[in-house]
Amino acid sequence: MIRVSIWNEYVQEQLDEQKFEFVREWNVSEQVQQEFARKAEMIRGIHHGAIHNTLCDLIREEADLEVRHIGTLEMEECGLTEDVLKDTDVLIWWSHIAQEQVPDEIAWRVVRHVQRGMGIIFLHSSHMCKPMRFLLGTSCTLRWREGDFCRVWNVDPTHPIAKGIDDYIELEEEEMYGEYFDIPKPDDHIFSSWYSGGELIRSGCTWTRAAGRIFYFQPGHETNRSYFHPQIRQIIRNAVRWCAEPGIRLEELSCTAVRGPMKKG
Amino acid sequence: MIRVSIWNEYVQEQLDEQKFEFVREWNVSEQVQQEFARKAEMIRGIHHGAIHNTLCDLIREEADLEVRHIGTLEMEECGLTEDVLKDTDVLIWWSHIAQEQVPDEIAWRVVRHVQRGMGIIFLHSSHMCKPMRFLLGTSCTLRWREGDFCRVWNVDPTHPIAKGIDDYIELEEEEMYGEYFDIPKPDDHIFSSWYSGGELIRSGCTWTRAAGRIFYFQPGHETNRSYFHPQIRQIIRNAVRWCAEPGIRLEELSCTAVRGPMKKG
Amino acid sequence: MIRVSIWNEYVQEQLDEQKFEFVREWNVSEQVQQEFARKAEMIRGIHHGAIHNTLCDLIREEADLEVRHIGTLEMEECGLTEDVLKDTDVLIWWSHIAQEQVPDEIAWRVVRHVQRGMGIIFLHSSHMCKPMRFLLGTSCTLRWREGDFCRVWNVDPTHPIAKGIDDYIELEEEEMYGEYFDIPKPDDHIFSSWYSGGELIRSGCTWTRAAGRIFYFQPGHETNRSYFHPQIRQIIRNAVRWCAEPGIRLEELSCTAVRGPMKKG
Amino acid sequence: MIRVSIWNEYVQEQLDEQKFEFVREWNVSEQVQQEFARKAEMIRGIHHGAIHNTLCDLIREEADLEVRHIGTLEMEECGLTEDVLKDTDVLIWWSHIAQEQVPDEIAWRVVRHVQRGMGIIFLHSSHMCKPMRFLLGTSCTLRWREGDFCRVWNVDPTHPIAKGIDDYIELEEEEMYGEYFDIPKPDDHIFSSWYSGGELIRSGCTWTRAAGRIFYFQPGHETNRSYFHPQIRQIIRNAVRWCAEPGIRLEELSCTAVRGPMKKG
Repeated sequence: MIRVSIWNEYVQEQLDEQKFEFVREWNVSEQVQQEFARKAEMIRGIHHGAIHNTLCDLIREEADLEVRHIGTLEMEECGLTEDVLKDTDVLIWWSHIAQEQVPDEIAWRVVRHVQRGMGIIFLHSSHMCKPMRFLLGTSCTLRWREGDFCRVWNVDPTHPIAKGIDDYIELEEEEMYGEYFDIPKPDDHIFSSWYSGGELIRSGCTWTRAAGRIFYFQPGHETNRSYFHPQIRQIIRNAVRWCAEPGIRLEELSCTAVRGPMKKG
Repeated sequence: MIRVSIWNEYVQEQLDEQKFEFVREWNVSEQVQQEFARKAEMIRGIHHGAIHNTLCDLIREEADLEVRHIGTLEMEECGLTEDVLKDTDVLIWWSHIAQEQVPDEIAWRVVRHVQRGMGIIFLHSSHMCKPMRFLLGTSCTLRWREGDFCRVWNVDPTHPIAKGIDDYIELEEEEMYGEYFDIPKPDDHIFSSWYSGGELIRSGCTWTRAAGRIFYFQPGHETNRSYFHPQIRQIIRNAVRWCAEPGIRLEELSCTAVRGPMKKG
Repeated sequence: MIRVSIWNEYVQEQLDEQKFEFVREWNVSEQVQQEFARKAEMIRGIHHGAIHNTLCDLIREEADLEVRHIGTLEMEECGLTEDVLKDTDVLIWWSHIAQEQVPDEIAWRVVRHVQRGMGIIFLHSSHMCKPMRFLLGTSCTLRWREGDFCRVWNVDPTHPIAKGIDDYIELEEEEMYGEYFDIPKPDDHIFSSWYSGGELIRSGCTWTRAAGRIFYFQPGHETNRSYFHPQIRQIIRNAVRWCAEPGIRLEELSCTAVRGPMKKG
Repeated sequence: MIRVSIWNEYVQEQLDEQKFEFVREWNVSEQVQQEFARKAEMIRGIHHGAIHNTLCDLIREEADLEVRHIGTLEMEECGLTEDVLKDTDVLIWWSHIAQEQVPDEIAWRVVRHVQRGMGIIFLHSSHMCKPMRFLLGTSCTLRWREGDFCRVWNVDPTHPIAKGIDDYIELEEEEMYGEYFDIPKPDDHIFSSWYSGGELIRSGCTWTRAAGRIFYFQPGHETNRSYFHPQIRQIIRNAVRWCAEPGIRLEELSCTAVRGPMKKG
């Protein structure tokens, strides 16, 4: 049984209540507040209240996967305590407008667990969350615009994450993310997405950092229905299994001092 | 003219004077203090007072390279101000016992300049300095012991950093660094080192992060004479040129919002 | 001065004369023959008689590059004698309908020269020529259809082959080549192309084989004008310089037998 | 059940009988013939008559693996018929002095099956066999000398092929293979070997070609006992499972012609 935890910043779903301190500080106009509220309503409608509900469901459908913990920004320590992370084989991360609200200390804790063997899947707008930037070392910036028809092409069809996936997947609407996408050379480049408006992006990529496997996957805008597409669900589940494959969890990572030349045997 | 700056933590050379606050706090015994002093004397002897002198000399020998700035831990802002970094094409970094004394803020500033196009060369014990760990995302831990005969094998002879380098280089004594060396999959793996005591390590590797090129090179223990070996000097100079090659310096790295589908032309 | 040679199969330009034995053997109908003739006329018009003329011109514009030899299928030994290849730093290859007419012996000769240090650039439909398949080891198959608007995205902007190249290049019409493109994991993936009809492809990739650098670049359909686009010309010239960079030409590649353990010094 | 076939050139085990035409043509002296005979006796003793016996045994120990076919050079079509290859998920290949005796046609047939999804493991001196060179595109040459103490270091401990493998493995005697080893940049570099005589080599590497996974592993000189080391056996079995993982077998690899722009849905 692979232990999956899900982290959703869970801010946009609640923005009609102006619940979050840091958003109130932006001092937005009445009009923008209403726009927030309208969008929050929409997101809640699609995701049964919260994006983590959608993500939980797609994990729970599978007999070999279980959801262990759900974390959100407003929880104590963002719901990412040492105990939660130790109890997690693969963490799925979704974040967007509150990336900077995650304290550095928590972000580094996530990074340390990845290095010791916890897998991590960064979805969509999480491309700029702290754990992803701290693990990859680049700015993770890209080109973007809202809503377009998107075709996700399979460019590494024998990769385990592409198992059962067709030549391409069509998404009626997905936020456009385009090149140049500032990521390190991927270990595996599995998907590239085409947008009818004229752009493309390396949209499914892996890296390994120490004992931890990482997958970034582009689809999943909060007001789109990509996570309800059977093939997108399959990719995320494949990625969970791929991230969990090494089955290793190190106690710590430290230098090893040895004395004198090695002896045989 | 390639503008090179050199950063040397410059602590061990001064340890007989117990100059540094953080070392005094270790509360070391009289005997350890004397050991420090003896070693500091030795390092000063080899490096004409400081490791950065040795590194400066090997840059200054070349007509196309110039040394612009020297920074050390004890300088204000570690000598790594915005102005210094802007004026630097390639930064050479040597550090060891005071890695954690570089403030996070300074380390991230270095990282940002690398991402915008400043090349960086991490030497020897710098494998665990903050900028290297922040750029690579792994723990950079390894196995080590002191002083052994070392043979540096050239495993990518057509790489520009290996230009003019023989099949192997022999170093009479070099600190042993061995596998498992916790680094991300290198973009280029150029050198591997063999130690007579039984270990080996990927000792010369490159990565790119955003617009910045990175080279890690293992030789250079403070009490050894590796930096006086003509071929080691050549490798470092080749690496400076390779790091400087793109000749790009970005103002900033940020996401680009675009409006509507692209129009031809 | 970088010595460039150009190989063009030079068949389609001559097809109205039904000059080539192997085409006559296809026993094509009168109608197809007329279609061949019409297209041959068109290609000759665009390329001043032959595609190699266009390629020569874009090399000759540069002071540091010279065209040394031109080879075609109908020449003795395809114009790819040992002497020609020895006198070549970088070979540019264009081929299409006569890939299988190049004798294995000649293809392996090209491969051997690449392994010893000759750079090679495979253009467009050359993706299935023998030297490319023998060097890469994959089938190099892909999806294709004729003529579409194409946008070539720059996905590795600090790579020397992308020097001076914008975020993207627009080609009014280019033959569509799409994924899955069966190539080994590229060493560098520099360009990806978007087609208005819905596909994309990794369209500019490098590999190294022994001492030889390889660049594959997708644009260049015989009836399109891609090679007259200033940025496409720039990419090909950048690639010539990148392929020539190591400046190494080995006499042979053979195993080295050594006797007894190594001695220091 | 993973279907494994084993190909052993099976020449050296029989050389005291001077059975092979191509060896007789070497016209070797009486003394060399006796040397051959003495060594053949030795190999037969270690491997119960033939190296493929040793390899079969290490596969047969595992419940999820079965040996389907054994092929040797002297068999019709080298024992590598279309039927045999179709019935094989992973082929283990051992060859040495008769690499050139495998007809090109048979070597390309193996390559085509790898491209369509058959995994392949090249052991030891097979580094220069035709299928390996045709798949990788390099010369695969290296430095070598006989018999030395060897320590195989694990440099990618979370790779599935390293599952259950210690930091290093010691082999009392193994033929020395050293750098520069002329291979393409590995997709994964899992093991590096250290020899007491002073050399090292990237000794365990993977590549993927089309749908086929490839593993090269250095140990296994015919007169050494490396294949009886439990950890070496484990690595080969891990590699079989890793090569078989995609579980894909394509009918053919060909370009796909499509008509007109794509339509949604």
